[in-house]
Amino acid sequence: MNKKAVCLISGGLDSSVTSFIAKDEGYDIFALSFNYGQRHNKEIKSSQEIAKAADVKKHIIIDLNLSEFGGSSLLDKKIQPDLDNKLNDIGKNIPNTYVPARNTIFLSIALAYAETIDADAIFIGATSADYSGYPDCRPEYFKAFQKLFDLATKKGIQGGQIKIKTPLLSLSKSEIIKKGIKLNVPFEKTWSCYLGEDKACGRCDSCLLRLKGFKQAGKKDPINYNFLPDWYK
Amino acid sequence: MNKKAVCLISGGLDSSVTSFIAKDEGYDIFALSFNYGQRHNKEIKSSQEIAKAADVKKHIIIDLNLSEFGGSSLLDKKIQPDLDNKLNDIGKNIPNTYVPARNTIFLSIALAYAETIDADAIFIGATSADYSGYPDCRPEYFKAFQKLFDLATKKGIQGGQIKIKTPLLSLSKSEIIKKGIKLNVPFEKTWSCYLGEDKACGRCDSCLLRLKGFKQAGKKDPINYNFLPDWYK
Repeated sequence: MNKKAVCLISGGLDSSVTSFIAKDEGYDIFALSFNYGQRHNKEIKSSQEIAKAADVKKHIIIDLNLSEFGGSSLLDKKIQPDLDNKLNDIGKNIPNTYVPARNTIFLSIALAYAETIDADAIFIGATSADYSGYPDCRPEYFKAFQKLFDLATKKGIQGGQIKIKTPLLSLSKSEIIKKGIKLNVPFEKTWSCYLGEDKACGRCDSCLLRLKGFKQAGKKDPINYNFLPDWYK
Repeated sequence: MNKKAVCLISGGLDSSVTSFIAKDEGYDIFALSFNYGQRHNKEIKSSQEIAKAADVKKHIIIDLNLSEFGGSSLLDKKIQPDLDNKLNDIGKNIPNTYVPARNTIFLSIALAYAETIDADAIFIGATSADYSGYPDCRPEYFKAFQKLFDLATKKGIQGGQIKIKTPLLSLSKSEIIKKGIKLNVPFEKTWSCYLGEDKACGRCDSCLLRLKGFKQAGKKDPINYNFLPDWYK
């Protein structure tokens, strides 16, 4: 019997590559996605297609309406995400797309799922290199969460462990894309844009980081954009 | 302006006393409850009555269906919670009412709420004295969570702190009840029984610990029971 892992799949590029890494490592994958009131909830359709492509055993989509709290441009349509930032400025400050405690919530719910099915690991596609400067994507954050995991669970106090796996944590976006190409990740099915319109905007931080990654990897991003920055063309 | 606190209010005895402690400490209370697929979801009505009695500023009830995962007699109606345990045996082993990662999930979502409204504290009515042996009620667990809080949030990395407050952690049930009496907690509005039927069963661990507490405090529990153990009468 294969080892089991819970994979957080948002439908974006990073979590898609992460799920294919889990598959490549021989895990049976139990996918978890969230309909949390996000502006770009079309990423959920992508999560379903990626889950299928990664041949997961089960895919649970949790409804959890964080927009009751607000406090983020991803949750509150009256706040506009930043557009057209300079690449070098992304990650310097915490942007308004920051959703308070989002990774903490997602990992907690993943922990419940993992403990219930007796999984060995939870995969999350966090990255702290080409990223938006979110506090809950840093290595020290995941280290603290592992400590909490070990104390929080029946499995933990009985001497077992549920490992948080962050295979992308120190990789640049282009390195992530190159890894994804090797593993045949269907990038055309992924969705990264914060705006969540028909085509990707090509202007929000998420689009910009993605386009930079493809550019540096020497590949063409297969999805459609409404706009492309000059440096990408 | 008063300090703000998020209070987790389940509608049970412990969280009710905790919310009155927060009120007594001068906090403006923002209450948070969960409709998580629990067998005894009538506790939610109690949470509303307690929130009103504690004069909270706002009360948000989050729908989060954990019964998709199962793995607990509180989530899966096919599993029966233990009844008629000996008082001395309660807390020795982790019972089937344990809900994997429940406190971790609730605290994570409370953290999102607290950061959004710029609260200073989160109150949770956990107790590790007269308790059911859950791993996520122990002091070392809350210490690890505080560390995580400090790393997870924008407020944390900017030097602020959202404090986890567990005023009942080392108190016995009778001490909690005596504190509640001093603070005029309306115990008749609280609900503790795991079975969630019309009257409290008087036989599950939660009823037994509650009855023991009233007995030791020399008070009569004001709620109605279907059954009362001999030692209580």
